[in-house]
Order: sequence, then structure tokens, then C-alpha cells
Amino acid sequence: MLFMVEMDVNIPLDFDRAEAARIKAAEKAYFQSLQAAGTWRHIWRKAGHYANVSIFAVDSNAALHDTLMGLPLYPFMTMKVTPLCRHPSSLHDDDR
Amino acid sequence: MLFMVEMDVNIPLDFDRAEAARIKAAEKAYFQSLQAAGTWRHIWRKAGHYANVSIFAVDSNAALHDTLMGLPLYPFMTMKVTPLCRHPSSLHDDDR
Amino acid sequence: MLFMVEMDVNIPLDFDRAEAARIKAAEKAYFQSLQAAGTWRHIWRKAGHYANVSIFAVDSNAALHDTLMGLPLYPFMTMKVTPLCRHPSSLHDDDR
Amino acid sequence: MLFMVEMDVNIPLDFDRAEAARIKAAEKAYFQSLQAAGTWRHIWRKAGHYANVSIFAVDSNAALHDTLMGLPLYPFMTMKVTPLCRHPSSLHDDDR
Amino acid sequence: MLFMVEMDVNIPLDFDRAEAARIKAAEKAYFQSLQAAGTWRHIWRKAGHYANVSIFAVDSNAALHDTLMGLPLYPFMTMKVTPLCRHPSSLHDDDR
Amino acid sequence: MLFMVEMDVNIPLDFDRAEAARIKAAEKAYFQSLQAAGTWRHIWRKAGHYANVSIFAVDSNAALHDTLMGLPLYPFMTMKVTPLCRHPSSLHDDDR
Amino acid sequence: MLFMVEMDVNIPLDFDRAEAARIKAAEKAYFQSLQAAGTWRHIWRKAGHYANVSIFAVDSNAALHDTLMGLPLYPFMTMKVTPLCRHPSSLHDDDR
Amino acid sequence: MLFMVEMDVNIPLDFDRAEAARIKAAEKAYFQSLQAAGTWRHIWRKAGHYANVSIFAVDSNAALHDTLMGLPLYPFMTMKVTPLCRHPSSLHDDDR
Amino acid sequence: MLFMVEMDVNIPLDFDRAEAARIKAAEKAYFQSLQAAGTWRHIWRKAGHYANVSIFAVDSNAALHDTLMGLPLYPFMTMKVTPLCRHPSSLHDDDR
Amino acid sequence: MLFMVEMDVNIPLDFDRAEAARIKAAEKAYFQSLQAAGTWRHIWRKAGHYANVSIFAVDSNAALHDTLMGLPLYPFMTMKVTPLCRHPSSLHDDDR
Repeated sequence: MLFMVEMDVNIPLDFDRAEAARIKAAEKAYFQSLQAAGTWRHIWRKAGHYANVSIFAVDSNAALHDTLMGLPLYPFMTMKVTPLCRHPSSLHDDDR
Repeated sequence: MLFMVEMDVNIPLDFDRAEAARIKAAEKAYFQSLQAAGTWRHIWRKAGHYANVSIFAVDSNAALHDTLMGLPLYPFMTMKVTPLCRHPSSLHDDDR
Repeated sequence: MLFMVEMDVNIPLDFDRAEAARIKAAEKAYFQSLQAAGTWRHIWRKAGHYANVSIFAVDSNAALHDTLMGLPLYPFMTMKVTPLCRHPSSLHDDDR
Repeated sequence: MLFMVEMDVNIPLDFDRAEAARIKAAEKAYFQSLQAAGTWRHIWRKAGHYANVSIFAVDSNAALHDTLMGLPLYPFMTMKVTPLCRHPSSLHDDDR
Repeated sequence: MLFMVEMDVNIPLDFDRAEAARIKAAEKAYFQSLQAAGTWRHIWRKAGHYANVSIFAVDSNAALHDTLMGLPLYPFMTMKVTPLCRHPSSLHDDDR
Repeated sequence: MLFMVEMDVNIPLDFDRAEAARIKAAEKAYFQSLQAAGTWRHIWRKAGHYANVSIFAVDSNAALHDTLMGLPLYPFMTMKVTPLCRHPSSLHDDDR
Repeated sequence: MLFMVEMDVNIPLDFDRAEAARIKAAEKAYFQSLQAAGTWRHIWRKAGHYANVSIFAVDSNAALHDTLMGLPLYPFMTMKVTPLCRHPSSLHDDDR
Repeated sequence: MLFMVEMDVNIPLDFDRAEAARIKAAEKAYFQSLQAAGTWRHIWRKAGHYANVSIFAVDSNAALHDTLMGLPLYPFMTMKVTPLCRHPSSLHDDDR
Repeated sequence: MLFMVEMDVNIPLDFDRAEAARIKAAEKAYFQSLQAAGTWRHIWRKAGHYANVSIFAVDSNAALHDTLMGLPLYPFMTMKVTPLCRHPSSLHDDDR
Repeated sequence: MLFMVEMDVNIPLDFDRAEAARIKAAEKAYFQSLQAAGTWRHIWRKAGHYANVSIFAVDSNAALHDTLMGLPLYPFMTMKVTPLCRHPSSLHDDDR
């Protein structure tokens, strides 16, 4: 089951830089483990913004919630969640 | 080069049904030719809406414009266009 | 899996009254079959509005989409869909 | 008499963590006493957000106000209040 | 129990004038019976607009809903409903 | 001459509590003197919010401005001002 | 007493042209009588829009309401009303 | 050439009071020199707000920009700029 | 003196096609005469939209207004006007 | 390939002035190198605002993203990105 999640990141100007770097590294590791597992199916940068559009494949709303709450950058993000489903005209089996 | 295009479809209540069916069939054929060509890379329905989120792979802004203007349903659609780029953390080569 | 769906109904002033009555009757029958099946778990009127807040229990985003698209009043409605999940503090087992 | 209350929680990044934990524990206790009493009839998380949708059963607008003002997390919340009423098509007696 | 209801009236330019006059007369009669009964406690015009701010005294959300649905001009109105309660500093007993 | 004024109060989380209590007490005294004088004709809480809807009777826009600027809580408030006038259908002489 | 009124005019594409011309002529005559009387103190076009910003000098909110309701173009206009008062720093006596 | 400029002033609660008083005095002197020169043609308070509506007469967009950037309170203001032009129906020669 | 004008075009679905074609041809001729004269300095399509961003060089707000009002497509357009001025860092003399 | 980028700059009131001056100088140097290279094709101030409208000529969305991320003032800016394309009616070859 797929969800589009749009994430805007906003780290305050005066936030400690070393701490920010540590959180971003943790975020990257967490992201890549989810990407390898197939949960975080797609990610793209929005050009010109510290923001991304992502597609998640999860079993339930609760699984999506727990996955997003686990993001190290979560407290710095604004989220928009859109539930998706397969388009009837699609020729691709995995655009489910 | 990728773009997210969000399309909302709104056909007036009193629009001729046979004409609407003809336009939708043309839309589907046009869509599938673009999907087969790799231009319309992804499409998903927004659950509960007559609307979709799509990812287009094109060579330029102009190619995107011409592709969207060719949609038989274009006069019935509201569009939102977001230019995307590859995310630096992605492990997938083709999430470009 | 639960979703909140907020529905606003807007039937044009000059829409045929007999046809509107027929559609509303079909809507009521469809609604009650879904309510009896446990799919349309809750429904409340928004006071002062021709609108409701509903809670749906479905197996997937696709099931939600198909259910909503089947509403006889769908062409007259504006929808807002919010995916929900169980609250960790809840004492009720079925607020899932 | 029922009300939908949508609550968004926003605790500042630099708020004292021990104090936040204390407030959340008080919130949970307060919530569960209201849930047990039947006042806080339903609660669901909004997937991906530190936010909930709740249904309150109270005797008056004033009772709702006093209940919400008593929330330990109230100073950190943005509220949206929607008065509800029973839907005429509902088969369930207690969706009042 | 009090509610503020803000009503904006919008009658289409090409709506039949005699029918509009008939509906407005019915609205005025309905309004004055509710005002005499104490249900429609206050009404004020918004200067420069075909709109009003009203205060209703009713026993429940459902009573408010039924009262508003009975307005002859309801199909031409946009409504905003705000539940109110007595202000703790008020010296007036009937600002309940 | 009547005006509706909607006031939202927002005192920062870290504002000195004793100072806040002192300002609120001054606000209450100022409010009650205006209420006794008939200037602040009505006040109601918005249920669930630290906010009110008020009706002011003043001689001019300038008198309204000076009255509001004198509020001890003014620096913590967001205001919305709506000029009102008597509704032609009203049976009450003093809903002027 | 002064008010800023912003007026946007929107005449439907298919509205009868002769009737529109007649209404605009009536509007101009009404406007000029109010301008000569000092009620409609200022008027400026918003560049690029069929819209104006105006300053009215009236005795009360009710006088403003009646003046605006008398505009022949009123049914085609969207209005925004802002009550003004003299600025304490102004050197001009008549910017009241 | 005329422009409407709407200015909202927002001085932070914890800003140094003596410094604020000094800036406001400089603002008043600057304002009055521009008013005397005919550049700042009109100013009115928005009733109930720390905000004004002003009309500027300048030779160019650049002159407007430089004038506004010179305001001592500029860093505390939110601005809205609307280019105006003479209304064809106006009887006043200087409403240019 | 430069202005950015953003134009969105919306021709109703049921508007006569021959008439629309005639208006578009008139629009193109008018546009090209203004472009040749240097008044309509730049124009770009917004990708995916029947809309453009344009830069006008005119002597006054009134000249801009008259130019835009002369557009054959004006009744079908929504406009946004932004006054511009030369950027102090620019190396180009004609980005005035 | 062209993009319109609208940039609003907001430097906090209490930000260190010397540091701000250093960042602005770096911004100007960066800007002028991009302007000389033809990447930052146009820039205009929005009159009355610390904001600009710019036109960028880049090879891809990714090139635009990297260019904008390199702005020394980026952390203080809010961006709006609009992909553009050549207008079919344009007589100018380089309005591509």
C-alpha cells in the first residue's frame, strides 16, 4: 500500500551545527535501511528547496506512522501525507 | 529530468456523457503511449479523489509543457507542477 | 485500518428535484449496507452544514477509493481524506 | 452532545525534556480518566503527525471548554472544534 | 447554549426575482418567529455585505442544525458556526 | 454604532507568570469598567479556545481604536474587526 | 468617519452588453453625486484590474451600508470594508 | 504616480523599550518630512490595529522602494504594495 | 519602469471556438506590436499551464493599466501585478 | 532552460550585523559571477520588499538546485520556483 509523503525540513539558524550533522547522518542511515528494505520506495528532492517527495510502501497506516515517527529529523519536519492507490490505466504492475 | 505533476479532474455535471467517454478513452490511449515510451514514468490515484500524482521524465520544461498540453482531458484539469531532482542519499540509480 | 473522510455535499440550485431525490435514496441504501457491513463505522452531521464526518474501516487505500467512488452522491461531493491509526493511550481495543 | 476536536501538538525543540515527559504523563492520566468516564468517546492518531482526531460527548459548550482547558498539553496545542449531531440515516443508536 | 452563526447570502444574478422575493419574505417570517421565541437571540448586518452575524440560543447541536436547515434562504447561504460559552469575567448574567 | 471584535490571545510559553497574572487582572478590571459603561456590550468565549467574540458600542472608529489600544492584553492579541449595523428585520430595538 | 472600501467588479462574459452599459452609466452618475457630496472622498483604480480602492466619509456604519447597497453595480462586486481613523502623526487636518 | 501601501507593525514583546521609542520618534520625523514634501500624501490608521493604509506619490517604482526602505520601522513591518491610477469617473483632478 | 504581470487564461469549456480563435489571433497581433515597441519586454510560458509571466516597460501605472485593458483576452484572464525596480547588484544596465 | 525564482529575504532582527554584512558581500560576489556566466539571467527588486524576481538559465533541475543551494543567503530565504518555457508568440529568439 502506497503513500506519498512530502517533507519540508527546517533547522533553526542557531541550532548547534555538530548536533545537526549528527542527526543528518542518522537520518541518512535510517533512510537507506528503509530504502534497502523496499519501504521507502522513492525519494526526490524538490528543486530549490530543502524538501523531498517520497513514496512509502507499508502494510498499514500504523506502519507508516511508526516509520515516520522514527525519522531522526522528524522534529524539524513539516509533513503532508497522501494515501495513494494503483491507477487503473497503468501498464506497470508495480505502480501499485 | 523529472517533474511531479498533480492533476485534478473536474468534468461538469451536465457535460455530455458520450463525449466524456470518448475523451477519457483518448486520454487512456495517450497516457499508455507515454507510459510505454518512459515519459510518464509513474502514476498513482489519490485515494478518494478523481486525481492523480504523476512523475514525468522529459528533456526540458518545454517538452513537459507540450506533453501536458496534449492531454485530451487537459481542459478539465487543474495542474500543479513541481520540478524534482535526484536525492543525494538515494541508493537507486534511476531515481534521477 | 481507519480513515476519516469529511464530505461536503453541494447540489446545484437548478438540479432536477426528482433526480436528486432518487440519488439521495440510492445514497442512503448504499450507506446503510456499508454501515451494516462495518465498513462505514461512524457518521456524524456537521451542525449547520450539509456535510458529514465519517470513519471508514477498510483493508487498503484501494478499498477506500473504490468504496467512495461508488457513492451515488460522489459527483456532488468535495472530499477530504485523513489516514488514521490507533492512539497509544486509548483504553478501547476497537479504536484501532 | 458530540463535538469533533482536532488537536495538533507542537512542543518547542528546546523545551526541557523532563518537564515535557512529566506533562505528557499528566496528559495521559487525564485523557484516560475522561475516556473511562465516556466524555472522551474516541481518539485516533493522524498518521504521520503528532496530532489526533477526537470525539467528545459533553452536556454543553461550556463543559467542552472546561474539559479542553484542563488538558495539561493545552498550551502546546492548536485546536479545531466542530459541533456534530446524529446523522438521520445512521442505523447505530449511539452515533448520537 | 449559544452559537455564533455567520451567514453570507448569494442569490445568482439570473435567479427569478419573484421567486427570490417570495423566499425572502418566508425567511423574514421564519426569522421573526425564532426571534420572538428567543432562539435567534441577536442579529446584525455586516456593513457593506449581504451577510449577518447571529447569536442562537438552543438546547443542543441538533436543535441548531434543524433550525438552520429550516431557513428558506439556506440553499443560498454559506455558513460558519462557532460554539460559544459564557465568559468568566462577564458581569451580565444573560451573556450565557 | 456596533462593531464585532474577535480576539485571540497568545501568551508565549516562557513569559513570566507573575507578570502575566498581573496583566490579566488589569485586563479584567478594564473590561468590567467598559462593560459597566455599556461600551463592551457583549462578550463570549469561543469554546475550546483562549479567544472571545465581543460586541462594542462606540461613537466612532477612533473611539473603537482607542478602546482596543487600551487593553492591557493588546500586545498579546490578534484582532479581527467587523463593522456592524442594525438588521432591517430585527424586532429588537437595541440590536442597533 | 472614514472607511476604506475595496471593490472588485466581475460582470459575467455572457451578460447582456446593453444592460451592462446601462448599469455602468447609472453607477457613474451615482458615484459622481456621492463624490460631489463629499461622501465618496477618494477613488483610485488598481492598475491592471477592474477594481478600485475608495475612501468613504460617512456618519455611521449604517450610512456606509446603505450607500454601498445603493450601488447599481453592487450585485457584480466583491467588497472588502476596513474602518479607518485619523493617524496621530498626520500633519493634515482632513485626513480624519 | 500613486501607490497604496499597507503597513503592519510588529515589534517583538521583548524588544528594548527605549530603543523602540527612539525608532518610533525617528519614524515620525521621517514621516512628517515626507508628508510635508507631498510624497506621503495620505495616511490612516486601521481601527483596532497597529497598522496603516497610506498613499504615496512618487516618480517611479524605484523612488517608492527607496522611500520605504528608508523607514526607521521598516525591519518591523510587513508591507503590501498596490499600484494605483486615476479613476476615469473621478471629478477631482488630483486623485491622479 | 518595469512591472511583472502574471496572466492566467481561462476560456470556458462551452465558449464558441471560432470566436475564441478570433480573439487569440487579435491577442497575438496586439502582443507582437507591443513586443516590437519594447513595451512588452519579456514573456514566458509557465510550463504545464495556460499562463505566462511577462515584464512590461511603461512610463506610469496608468500606461500599464491602459495597456493591459487593451488585451483582447483580458476578460478571460486573472492578473497579478508586481512593481519592480533595478537590483543594486546587477551588472546589466538594462535590467532597469 | 529557464526558471523563475522568487526570493524573499528575512534576516532576524537580532542577527549579528557584521556577520550579516559578510554574508551579503559573499552573496553579491556569488550573484555577480553567476550573472557574468549567464546563469542568473535577470534580477529585479520587488518594490517595497527585501525580495527579488530572478530568471535562471540552467541545463537541468539539478543544476538549478545546486546553484540555489550555493547562495550564501539561502538559509535566510523563502523560495518559489516556477519552470518556464519559450512563449510561441514571442518575436525574441532569446526569450527561450
